[in-house]
Amino acid sequence: MIIVLKQGIKANEVKELAAKLESQGVTVSHFTDIKRDFLGLIGDTSGIDAHQLHAFSEVEQVIRVEDPYKRANRKFHPENSIIKIGDETIGGTKLGIIAGPCSVESEEQIVTIAKQLKQAGANFLRGGAFKPRTSPYSFQGLELEGLKMLQVAKAETGMPIVTELMSTKWVDQFVDSVDIIQIGARNMQNFDLLKEIGRTNTPVLLKRGLSATYKEWLMSAEYIMAGGNENVILCERGIRTFETETRNTLDIQAVPVIKELSHLPIIIDPSHAGGMSYLVEAGAKSGIVAGADGLMIEVHNDPANAWSDGEQCLTPDEFARLMEKARKLAEFEGRSIDEAATILTK
Amino acid sequence: MIIVLKQGIKANEVKELAAKLESQGVTVSHFTDIKRDFLGLIGDTSGIDAHQLHAFSEVEQVIRVEDPYKRANRKFHPENSIIKIGDETIGGTKLGIIAGPCSVESEEQIVTIAKQLKQAGANFLRGGAFKPRTSPYSFQGLELEGLKMLQVAKAETGMPIVTELMSTKWVDQFVDSVDIIQIGARNMQNFDLLKEIGRTNTPVLLKRGLSATYKEWLMSAEYIMAGGNENVILCERGIRTFETETRNTLDIQAVPVIKELSHLPIIIDPSHAGGMSYLVEAGAKSGIVAGADGLMIEVHNDPANAWSDGEQCLTPDEFARLMEKARKLAEFEGRSIDEAATILTK
Amino acid sequence: MIIVLKQGIKANEVKELAAKLESQGVTVSHFTDIKRDFLGLIGDTSGIDAHQLHAFSEVEQVIRVEDPYKRANRKFHPENSIIKIGDETIGGTKLGIIAGPCSVESEEQIVTIAKQLKQAGANFLRGGAFKPRTSPYSFQGLELEGLKMLQVAKAETGMPIVTELMSTKWVDQFVDSVDIIQIGARNMQNFDLLKEIGRTNTPVLLKRGLSATYKEWLMSAEYIMAGGNENVILCERGIRTFETETRNTLDIQAVPVIKELSHLPIIIDPSHAGGMSYLVEAGAKSGIVAGADGLMIEVHNDPANAWSDGEQCLTPDEFARLMEKARKLAEFEGRSIDEAATILTK
Amino acid sequence: MIIVLKQGIKANEVKELAAKLESQGVTVSHFTDIKRDFLGLIGDTSGIDAHQLHAFSEVEQVIRVEDPYKRANRKFHPENSIIKIGDETIGGTKLGIIAGPCSVESEEQIVTIAKQLKQAGANFLRGGAFKPRTSPYSFQGLELEGLKMLQVAKAETGMPIVTELMSTKWVDQFVDSVDIIQIGARNMQNFDLLKEIGRTNTPVLLKRGLSATYKEWLMSAEYIMAGGNENVILCERGIRTFETETRNTLDIQAVPVIKELSHLPIIIDPSHAGGMSYLVEAGAKSGIVAGADGLMIEVHNDPANAWSDGEQCLTPDEFARLMEKARKLAEFEGRSIDEAATILTK
Repeated sequence: MIIVLKQGIKANEVKELAAKLESQGVTVSHFTDIKRDFLGLIGDTSGIDAHQLHAFSEVEQVIRVEDPYKRANRKFHPENSIIKIGDETIGGTKLGIIAGPCSVESEEQIVTIAKQLKQAGANFLRGGAFKPRTSPYSFQGLELEGLKMLQVAKAETGMPIVTELMSTKWVDQFVDSVDIIQIGARNMQNFDLLKEIGRTNTPVLLKRGLSATYKEWLMSAEYIMAGGNENVILCERGIRTFETETRNTLDIQAVPVIKELSHLPIIIDPSHAGGMSYLVEAGAKSGIVAGADGLMIEVHNDPANAWSDGEQCLTPDEFARLMEKARKLAEFEGRSIDEAATILTK
Repeated sequence: MIIVLKQGIKANEVKELAAKLESQGVTVSHFTDIKRDFLGLIGDTSGIDAHQLHAFSEVEQVIRVEDPYKRANRKFHPENSIIKIGDETIGGTKLGIIAGPCSVESEEQIVTIAKQLKQAGANFLRGGAFKPRTSPYSFQGLELEGLKMLQVAKAETGMPIVTELMSTKWVDQFVDSVDIIQIGARNMQNFDLLKEIGRTNTPVLLKRGLSATYKEWLMSAEYIMAGGNENVILCERGIRTFETETRNTLDIQAVPVIKELSHLPIIIDPSHAGGMSYLVEAGAKSGIVAGADGLMIEVHNDPANAWSDGEQCLTPDEFARLMEKARKLAEFEGRSIDEAATILTK
Repeated sequence: MIIVLKQGIKANEVKELAAKLESQGVTVSHFTDIKRDFLGLIGDTSGIDAHQLHAFSEVEQVIRVEDPYKRANRKFHPENSIIKIGDETIGGTKLGIIAGPCSVESEEQIVTIAKQLKQAGANFLRGGAFKPRTSPYSFQGLELEGLKMLQVAKAETGMPIVTELMSTKWVDQFVDSVDIIQIGARNMQNFDLLKEIGRTNTPVLLKRGLSATYKEWLMSAEYIMAGGNENVILCERGIRTFETETRNTLDIQAVPVIKELSHLPIIIDPSHAGGMSYLVEAGAKSGIVAGADGLMIEVHNDPANAWSDGEQCLTPDEFARLMEKARKLAEFEGRSIDEAATILTK
Repeated sequence: MIIVLKQGIKANEVKELAAKLESQGVTVSHFTDIKRDFLGLIGDTSGIDAHQLHAFSEVEQVIRVEDPYKRANRKFHPENSIIKIGDETIGGTKLGIIAGPCSVESEEQIVTIAKQLKQAGANFLRGGAFKPRTSPYSFQGLELEGLKMLQVAKAETGMPIVTELMSTKWVDQFVDSVDIIQIGARNMQNFDLLKEIGRTNTPVLLKRGLSATYKEWLMSAEYIMAGGNENVILCERGIRTFETETRNTLDIQAVPVIKELSHLPIIIDPSHAGGMSYLVEAGAKSGIVAGADGLMIEVHNDPANAWSDGEQCLTPDEFARLMEKARKLAEFEGRSIDEAATILTK
């Protein structure tokens, strides 16, 4: 961290400020370029609030040279992290394909879709049991009943399940019954929830906030990791921009930038990004060639009658065709996607 | 709600779609302007997801004519709401002046500042006990200890206290010891927290999310009100824009627009908006002339050594001078601010 | 300018880079804080492209300590600039009140409105002759005919005229017939136009771009001033945000921040900011208490039949009532607005 | 266009408003859904300003059902447009690969790079002669000298040239000497320039504005086309978002959305989007799989000494390696890129 001091500052003022800063546990070196004085802070500056330093009247500018995140930082962990989820992994050569409906609607629905998805090559099942809805009058999810239905689908197909947690109240139930806990975009800075998840060992899918920067996103991952849970998977799901034709704007550059800054795996959710089914293919393929470690795709057997987000769902057939293309493209890029499988009905 | 159908749609398709929609509890009327067919939905459409309707292949565009919020809507509640907090109110002629440090740091600190604030004319005391910090390595607040210190300051000065709640875990403690529960910008769409607060009777200060629209903000108020708690005060605290010179951009138009759309009181927080103490005066005065029902201002006796947000704090003296100007301006606008008072030490 | 070098850089690499930089006309000093090497650039760095320096593989971060604008910078010109326009000024104690219709529609219209505006206390007349319209099929303005009509209105009332220039083609005509040349938001970075205006002496009203930062805006002022024309007045007219309820978001903090960074006068355009007539009063009053040097307000005698922007226009009566309030508020703030006048018809 | 009228409006008011609207050349049909009255406008509504209609006190909401662009609209031109540039085309099966330095620096530089680019498979040469720079003190381009150097490079390699026009002053020179005229992001709404270009026949590369929506972008294309020049190629070059780690955010969804809305070709500029050379590959490959009709890539023989934008340039070798991968990926997608060629020095 470098502090640029105001012009005309006196020597004793510099000394006093340096002493105050050293009392926060860092080493301070003082240098000058004739016109100005600078203080360089050496040591662990992650607890120092750059913004706060502006309250000192001597300070003109504060520049953070070190990244504020440590555990998520590739500098201190050069190898890619590979997250283990049961027998599956995310972050290695094989892409993690997470698919399923926006909401769990019934046991029959989720089991039927799960089988179709597995047949097409998906290796994780998603489905919302607790739903974050803008309106209190919209369907809020089947809640614990939905979790049970997901477990039935898992028992029938062997697919690990991914579902969103919105409340610290249900952490224990999620740890017991969910393979990957999803933190939604609107809760990316629900620090209380992040801390609670950090105390568990369950893998976490951390969606990027609607207007979050990469650094804020990595700081939210850091919250989880600081608690001891290093099993974090990042998910780019589109950001808010001025464009109204699409639901969100897919930030494909997030993939190479996050790969540069961090060792954590990153996947792409083209369904929420575009918000319309005809945009899913372009988003999914872009994710693969940009180097993403997986995809999260909404699939519903009857989109027009889905209880939420139907307009962005693929049908199982559309999903199967997309997987064929995606599989070839992944191979082209030196990655892989599970083969289309045959599931025997019990 | 009006649904524009795609051109070339057949009569039986229109009928089928209308029937599906009527099954959701609304009345559907069909009309045409030669080139196109339209469906008008009459009745309570607040539970219908406009986005979802796009999943029907017949639908080209959906236009919500009715507002999606009801309890927060001025149309159904033309009079301004006045929120009662002990002997004080927010929403009437007198402005609510909430002041205090970003964080509660010690009993002595908060009691001393509280007395100075009351003397200057503030009628509510703020101070963070639980702090939402971007970094897990930054100071997170004194938590329950901080709440106790706030209560001591209240006992000494009689000022009702306002402090931020970040977790459903502490709802009971807050209901017992806090006069206004603050929901921070990052939790504006933490729906689980909003629902829990909705089950209490404690007044709520709902800050606008960093990138939230007015409608999203009102829908978050609606979440609280739908639970039965209609004591919601809105707080504009600046939104995220491309500008980096200021912490956030104060959206002063929020005041007249919210007054048009809703009957809820709205206050302005110029401290978080600008993020620098020299911007507080312009923001506070703009709030008053734009018609805000109050101000929320950060004050610290020693900003440079504040544990958080020092750069945007006023000193008690600066605050007292600002109150003098604000009081005259409020009178000019036909409003009022409490007179500067003398506090006797017990 | 400070350059942070990558860790592990060798001494001779530092020297080489320093030599290259010195060849660009600055002095380079080298310092280190044990872990890292830094280069400080002293001298006139305004021509050095910070972005470009990243192309050197040794460079990790570049921090501009000096502002990139010089002539617009308050540091080198501590006194407020007062721009002279005929017998009027903008930037002094008296506020500049610019009012008029969006578009000049006919001689009768503009003369009639001009008289009403002058009677209400406006001291500048605005009216668009060349109109920037999003659609090529919308009304594009009366062009040179419109300029002539503005001159008639000036002859009848004595009010200096303000109108938008969109093309270098008409610079001479504007210099001859216009008192303040307006550069619209969409042309804020039309550098060719800025350069041409910089070669004239005519005062310029430079509107802020739809998504421009303060620094970009000041750099556009710098373009004009670098050509020798220092008569620049800045105009905040709202920026684009995610909010769709209002046309733009009025950034009231622009006033105190620009006053801190620059000596140039700044005025507020509440009509374009909100885009609706009911928002004009709050915006105008906020501008006055925030310290703006003037207001720009759209007024039309028949808003519903205006050829453009009718929804944000005040009627002459509404304008006159607003001026009464604004005059008192200006006095409250130690500023002034011209008295309501009586105009004798020739 | 549908107009929702305010509740409680009287029959004669509806009639009067309908009559006014019909006077603007459209047919108006009136319908009601019990609670409300609506007016449907049939005919060519492209010249009607939806915003303006709000000035009528009877109007509550205006919904544009028809797109405001006609010539750029796929509905009226279902086949993809293929733009001819000499012997080359953009918009067909073969991708247009435009490459070259940010600025033309010398004849030797541009000729050398041009040969290297052609050898690697590029089929268009770019190079800035007139440069839009944020600072008036930065290098502004070699101007007409630069144009001549580009022509020498064209003569030596046969590559058509693409370069940016910033001023109506140089339209004739550009028409005479340039194969594709580029309109930069900052001039996307320089309507005067768009109109002038619309009067020529020279193909135009229209970059998306920094914060422009798809519709605004298409309306700018419409300006050019309305003048008679239908040879418009759109170029997505990244939009401004809150992210500061990258120069801009590449909006890859622009490709499928523009393909849906318009028949015009669209290419991707990954160099300006990310602003860093390591992001070019991911952006370029995403563009290809998303269906773009070409790429625009900055290449410089010595990026660290480039006169502008060096940090985002590839070296000729890096470009050649990228072309190899891009060629295979294009084939995978059923498209093609020119083979690497051998150029004989004259």
